[in-house]
Amino acid sequence: MKNIYLLGATGSIGSQTIEIIEEFPNEFNLIAISGYSNLEKIIEIGSKFALEMIAVKDEEDAKIIQNIFRDVKIVFGPSGLEAIANLNPEDKDGILINALVGMVGLKPTIEAIKVDRDILLANKETLVVGGHLIKELLSTHNVNLYPIDSEHNAIWQIMEGENKDNIKQLIITASGGSFRDLSKAELNDVTLKDALNHPNWSMGKKITIDSATMMNKGFEIIEAAYLFDIEIDKIKPLIHKESIIHSMVEFVDNSVIAQLANHDMKLPISYAMFYPTRVKNLTEPLDFSTIGKLHFEKVDYERYPLLTLAIECFKAGGSSRTVLNAANEAAVQLFLKEKIRFVDIETIVIDAVKHHQIVQNPTLEQIYEIDQFVKQDIFNKYDI
Amino acid sequence: MKNIYLLGATGSIGSQTIEIIEEFPNEFNLIAISGYSNLEKIIEIGSKFALEMIAVKDEEDAKIIQNIFRDVKIVFGPSGLEAIANLNPEDKDGILINALVGMVGLKPTIEAIKVDRDILLANKETLVVGGHLIKELLSTHNVNLYPIDSEHNAIWQIMEGENKDNIKQLIITASGGSFRDLSKAELNDVTLKDALNHPNWSMGKKITIDSATMMNKGFEIIEAAYLFDIEIDKIKPLIHKESIIHSMVEFVDNSVIAQLANHDMKLPISYAMFYPTRVKNLTEPLDFSTIGKLHFEKVDYERYPLLTLAIECFKAGGSSRTVLNAANEAAVQLFLKEKIRFVDIETIVIDAVKHHQIVQNPTLEQIYEIDQFVKQDIFNKYDI
Repeated sequence: MKNIYLLGATGSIGSQTIEIIEEFPNEFNLIAISGYSNLEKIIEIGSKFALEMIAVKDEEDAKIIQNIFRDVKIVFGPSGLEAIANLNPEDKDGILINALVGMVGLKPTIEAIKVDRDILLANKETLVVGGHLIKELLSTHNVNLYPIDSEHNAIWQIMEGENKDNIKQLIITASGGSFRDLSKAELNDVTLKDALNHPNWSMGKKITIDSATMMNKGFEIIEAAYLFDIEIDKIKPLIHKESIIHSMVEFVDNSVIAQLANHDMKLPISYAMFYPTRVKNLTEPLDFSTIGKLHFEKVDYERYPLLTLAIECFKAGGSSRTVLNAANEAAVQLFLKEKIRFVDIETIVIDAVKHHQIVQNPTLEQIYEIDQFVKQDIFNKYDI
Repeated sequence: MKNIYLLGATGSIGSQTIEIIEEFPNEFNLIAISGYSNLEKIIEIGSKFALEMIAVKDEEDAKIIQNIFRDVKIVFGPSGLEAIANLNPEDKDGILINALVGMVGLKPTIEAIKVDRDILLANKETLVVGGHLIKELLSTHNVNLYPIDSEHNAIWQIMEGENKDNIKQLIITASGGSFRDLSKAELNDVTLKDALNHPNWSMGKKITIDSATMMNKGFEIIEAAYLFDIEIDKIKPLIHKESIIHSMVEFVDNSVIAQLANHDMKLPISYAMFYPTRVKNLTEPLDFSTIGKLHFEKVDYERYPLLTLAIECFKAGGSSRTVLNAANEAAVQLFLKEKIRFVDIETIVIDAVKHHQIVQNPTLEQIYEIDQFVKQDIFNKYDI
């Protein structure tokens, strides 16, 4: 029996995690959850499970939820998320599932590591922005940090039984996003509606836009560098429009091992939750004769400047990744509000990174300060 | 330093093995070889390495070779192959590489197991015909039997670090052979020249014909059943005309792991020779953007009756697989001599299996008797 502390319970990853927990009541015990604005869903989950703690957005929501669940400890805001991450520090079978979106996910990861709690990670900012802090903390704590992202989960599956020293390169596949078939020039005229129409699947708005700019792939490359402790130049994206191959590892003998599956996040989530067991019948099998073809295409780095920028920021180190992420978050928000064009996202992010004075090895406090500063600066320029 | 005892040194697998040994003189020591009719090549190898023993076809060849290599022990015939397989029984770093073609490869495998010598296996008949004997012997000897065949080698690579109980099915890819684009009816008119024109690579004549009938894939399925101790109904062929994916494993959670590489037998050979190390720069890397597409197609079992027959023979057990192999060997020989049409191969093999009274659990002697009887019977009918 594993105790689950679930952050981001009302999102897409969170909801699928809860479905898995419901299917396997003898394997998992849901102890605590956080949700953001979807109170209805929080109430639904709270009614199904005997939770110890629920974290909500703010004090107002906390009062509403407390009125419904009188025996449950209700917390709120960023500190509420941290309270869930390190709840019951003596619980050695506890797992934090961090499915938060945004910078808010970084501190809870740190809190869980401090109580030696294993973490299933879907929150990108944890490693993109705080990778250096996490790496340092992990070196002094006995904690497993397992990826839920399908690309990193694929590499994890592939690397089982393999020696890290034998890796020649990691090949991270990319669908190419909503605009993969448009020329650079054609991007000038795309609308928000076009951008939100991902060719392969439906995801949250932010990640759909990040797929279209390949910022998302840049983040994933940074994450992979931390997760697998690999030089970033050994991590290469490859356009694979079917997204059936979730990633590949090329070894020094030029043998390539790939992981393939349908687009169903329940597979990587369950792989991480049940590890080292593999669990039956949660997802549909692939049918290769129906699939028929798998396509591959080189990534055109000129076409996706944010991908190149992400790699440069990783190499530059320090606070440059905080700026990269903050500027991107702000720019995507502006685009979603239709305040800027799609191509302006790139310009804004590149500009922010260019004008930033890098702070090496920033502390958590510095990271949050820089994040706020960069976002505010962009909002000031464009939002009014 | 590993000592290599190499059977079939002058063939395609044997030659590539020797190239690897030459590139890594500090890793491998070639102790003994066998060659069949290519005396020139035997002499060339003998001049390069300080061999202890050479096996040749017959007494006449033995005399020729002995005259050249006066200090080397020269043996001949089937017993010569066995003498190499169990040469220096005290040599615990010795490896038998069995790259023989045909039934003649079975006994040497058995002899090597008896002296607890690890075996790298390319000889198909060892498991297709003698699988039950090998399985029994392996249960009482501490021997590793490693596959060199690219499909089985792929599965071996994939299964590193995986639990056998998690396998849902093995997917063995098949190029489809020379006639993959012809209809069943069109097969009536194909010539020997057409049949020998394999779309993906050049191999020996026998295996090229076996690819066209998919008898080869049937043999590989039987081999996989023994090598990985899997129910045969869990082993499925899949047409993949690029032959870049060498095989795949589908696990119970519907995650699929695949191994990909160029068509270069040096990769599986070196993987087996250097295991658990992976060695650099022996083969060319894949270039996915140049490859562009990978295709998959269902296997039409009606189109390939020998594939179905192989699976039936595995299930029927006993001597049926000896008959399957013997009849196929004889029929392919007749086709190569242009005594029969391509489609007659199937008829002859099906007929031989149908009329055979199965001997359960045949001894080695019974296997050789049945093999001779079946072949002679077919030659008598068609060769005159």
